[in-house]
Amino acid sequence: MTSHTATFIDLTHPYLEEVELVMRQSAGHHHASLDKAIDHLLSSGGKRIRPIAAILIGKMLDADIERITVHAAAIEMLHTATLVHDDLIDGSLLRRGLPTLNAQWTQGATVLAGDYIFARAARLAAATNSLVLMDSFARGLMTIVGGEITQLFSQEFVTTHQSYLDRTYAKTASLFEVATEGAAVLGGASEETIEAMKLYGYYIGLAFQIVDDVLDFTGEQSQIGKPVASDLHQGLITLPTLYFLEDQSNGKMLIERLQKKQINENELEQIIEDIRSSSAIDRSLQQADEFAKTGEAQLELMPEKPERDALYELARYVVNRSA
Amino acid sequence: MTSHTATFIDLTHPYLEEVELVMRQSAGHHHASLDKAIDHLLSSGGKRIRPIAAILIGKMLDADIERITVHAAAIEMLHTATLVHDDLIDGSLLRRGLPTLNAQWTQGATVLAGDYIFARAARLAAATNSLVLMDSFARGLMTIVGGEITQLFSQEFVTTHQSYLDRTYAKTASLFEVATEGAAVLGGASEETIEAMKLYGYYIGLAFQIVDDVLDFTGEQSQIGKPVASDLHQGLITLPTLYFLEDQSNGKMLIERLQKKQINENELEQIIEDIRSSSAIDRSLQQADEFAKTGEAQLELMPEKPERDALYELARYVVNRSA
Repeated sequence: MTSHTATFIDLTHPYLEEVELVMRQSAGHHHASLDKAIDHLLSSGGKRIRPIAAILIGKMLDADIERITVHAAAIEMLHTATLVHDDLIDGSLLRRGLPTLNAQWTQGATVLAGDYIFARAARLAAATNSLVLMDSFARGLMTIVGGEITQLFSQEFVTTHQSYLDRTYAKTASLFEVATEGAAVLGGASEETIEAMKLYGYYIGLAFQIVDDVLDFTGEQSQIGKPVASDLHQGLITLPTLYFLEDQSNGKMLIERLQKKQINENELEQIIEDIRSSSAIDRSLQQADEFAKTGEAQLELMPEKPERDALYELARYVVNRSA
Repeated sequence: MTSHTATFIDLTHPYLEEVELVMRQSAGHHHASLDKAIDHLLSSGGKRIRPIAAILIGKMLDADIERITVHAAAIEMLHTATLVHDDLIDGSLLRRGLPTLNAQWTQGATVLAGDYIFARAARLAAATNSLVLMDSFARGLMTIVGGEITQLFSQEFVTTHQSYLDRTYAKTASLFEVATEGAAVLGGASEETIEAMKLYGYYIGLAFQIVDDVLDFTGEQSQIGKPVASDLHQGLITLPTLYFLEDQSNGKMLIERLQKKQINENELEQIIEDIRSSSAIDRSLQQADEFAKTGEAQLELMPEKPERDALYELARYVVNRSA
């Protein structure tokens, strides 16, 4: 890395504010309760990693910053919409420490609110004025929803690293990829650069989700904004559990009982405690670190600009964050 | 009208088959159950009026028929997706005489199936390779969902013709408009022609929905594929009820009780019977007829081709159909 001291926050802050504005302006004002709910969803924030990555890549490749802003807003709106339906389907009551929409609204209202945010995201995607981006946006949506459907319907439970990675790609890395690839497309970059930026998004997306899955075990409720080990409580097997069970003689049987929720609360709490204090946590973080490094490697041939440095930093942040 | 005898069915049949194929091909094959469900949804059909209108306009204006096919498939997929979420929200168990998805699947699976069909529709819209169409597609989705949200949240019940028309526009005419306007855009038509074809879709869309609302009262369950007067049973006031209550001294009070479902089953059945045998039915059909005629008037300056005649016929069919 060069000696630039700029952080990804400093470099993207003014543009991120613009992204927030674009997301809010696209509101449409159909109904006061809906507007308030969307406002609440947008205010509760999240880390805006996808927009940050898109802005940095866009700036680094001299893309039109206005189109980048719209693109970033489209991606973040799509992400928001999928969370609304996710929380409804999972019956989650908290996200980022705040009540979810389905905790306050009827099923019907929550479905429609999600649909409405989808529609707004699609309008923003169309406003990038790029057919390539529009198609990639639609493909991203299809991958995310397809992944959730596989998860919901699949008789084959997640028992291998590959199935975990497939799910993680669909759930998270796919939209990271759409964000970073799209930014390079808007920069008019070469095929190689577009592919490299797509891979950057892909790998830091995988790393991001693995760290999320680790934090689900190691974080405190106050930090992560939802109950500890909420995934496992829902029978969802993530990387730490996979690594942990690999070392157990009865791992295969346990994984099935966990997924079918055929386990009592005391035993489950003990397993969660065991995972938290096991090497599975570090091994998962190591895997995240490797992915992030592969992502960083894609930056090698990029223009030497502060934004490139910030993209390295962003990859490090994704792995080292504690919330 | 000229002496051509071609019907809208004959003229569009081969292209409609292509539309069906495109809808099915875009499936993606994520999971056998999902594929089966989507297949079932597409097979249960519907009248395909939107694709038929788009194909006729496209052919009349010499648009590339392949792009028209993709556009028509995108519209019909979007329509299908909104029906899936609609039925879930309304708790409807039958549509077109067949069990709805939510009658067979869990809430979560139904939400995701709708999302997935949305995603496929968006991909098809992107595949039209037209930014104008893409934006119009996204706007259409926003209007439809916005209308449903207004209906769900609104404290002001539908008590005026205007609020009925607003809802009918959002629910049905908006997507007709997207279908017909888009076809003209793909034909490279002039602004005037595009506007005329948009209006054609708008007016026959309004007429179509009014006739649907009439058939909800006058049809038999075996014909319309759902229980008679299902709208009113759900507290939904449509045009026949509006006309009927206008003539009743206690109409204002009744409308409120109907919408709040503060009415017992016997009284409700009597009201439904009264509406069925009242002039409200004919007055509603007359209104539909007027809208259809205004739609037809948009065809006046269009090229004298068999497709133009078929568009007249289509408008007549929309009003005169009995199912």
